[in-house]
Amino acid sequence: MAHYRDDLDAVLLALADPTRRRIVRRLGRGPASVGELARPFEMTLPSFMKHVRTLESSGVIRTSKTGRVRSCVLNRDRLALVDDWLAEQRELWSDRTDRLEAFVTDRHADRATEQKEPS
Amino acid sequence: MAHYRDDLDAVLLALADPTRRRIVRRLGRGPASVGELARPFEMTLPSFMKHVRTLESSGVIRTSKTGRVRSCVLNRDRLALVDDWLAEQRELWSDRTDRLEAFVTDRHADRATEQKEPS
Repeated sequence: MAHYRDDLDAVLLALADPTRRRIVRRLGRGPASVGELARPFEMTLPSFMKHVRTLESSGVIRTSKTGRVRSCVLNRDRLALVDDWLAEQRELWSDRTDRLEAFVTDRHADRATEQKEPS
Repeated sequence: MAHYRDDLDAVLLALADPTRRRIVRRLGRGPASVGELARPFEMTLPSFMKHVRTLESSGVIRTSKTGRVRSCVLNRDRLALVDDWLAEQRELWSDRTDRLEAFVTDRHADRATEQKEPS
């Protein structure tokens, strides 16, 4: 559980940046080299590499080197951690709505009974 | 668009912490005062308030003060920003899968034609 939490922290932190989200978006269309990924950004390569490393250490992307080229692929399973957490929250909200509905229905039934019974 | 991106940065950063995610989870069951929220955490009130303020400034929660009590409510719309971003990514992946499928199908059709035609 602690492990899952740490993982989720790292993934959310990695995604909390527009450059890194653009990289994720680009890799959603297929693998790419660091050179290709860096091209649309007005940024030095060392600055760009910091973003790549943050994404890699969070597990959101995987990289591998062949000769002088570093290739990057998206690891969708890591994004699923965020999906799972959000789904868990939605479940809590719907439980709450159900309880609220049951409460309102019960009150309504109670009142109907009260009105029928002589006081 | 820049505004949406900044908002999403703030929401993702706010969620990238286990204490803050526990607060969001608790508020998913209904509004609560800061005192109630702080109770399960082994933390000083000033430290806890920092988390509350991070959540508030990201818009994930709203707070209001009545007398000496500060109440907190969850703002689900802010979490929907994360949902929307994830949905956008999934759409890109499915486009890619569709294109890949079309490519494989085309290659298969090409080969079938090649095999029929005299070389």
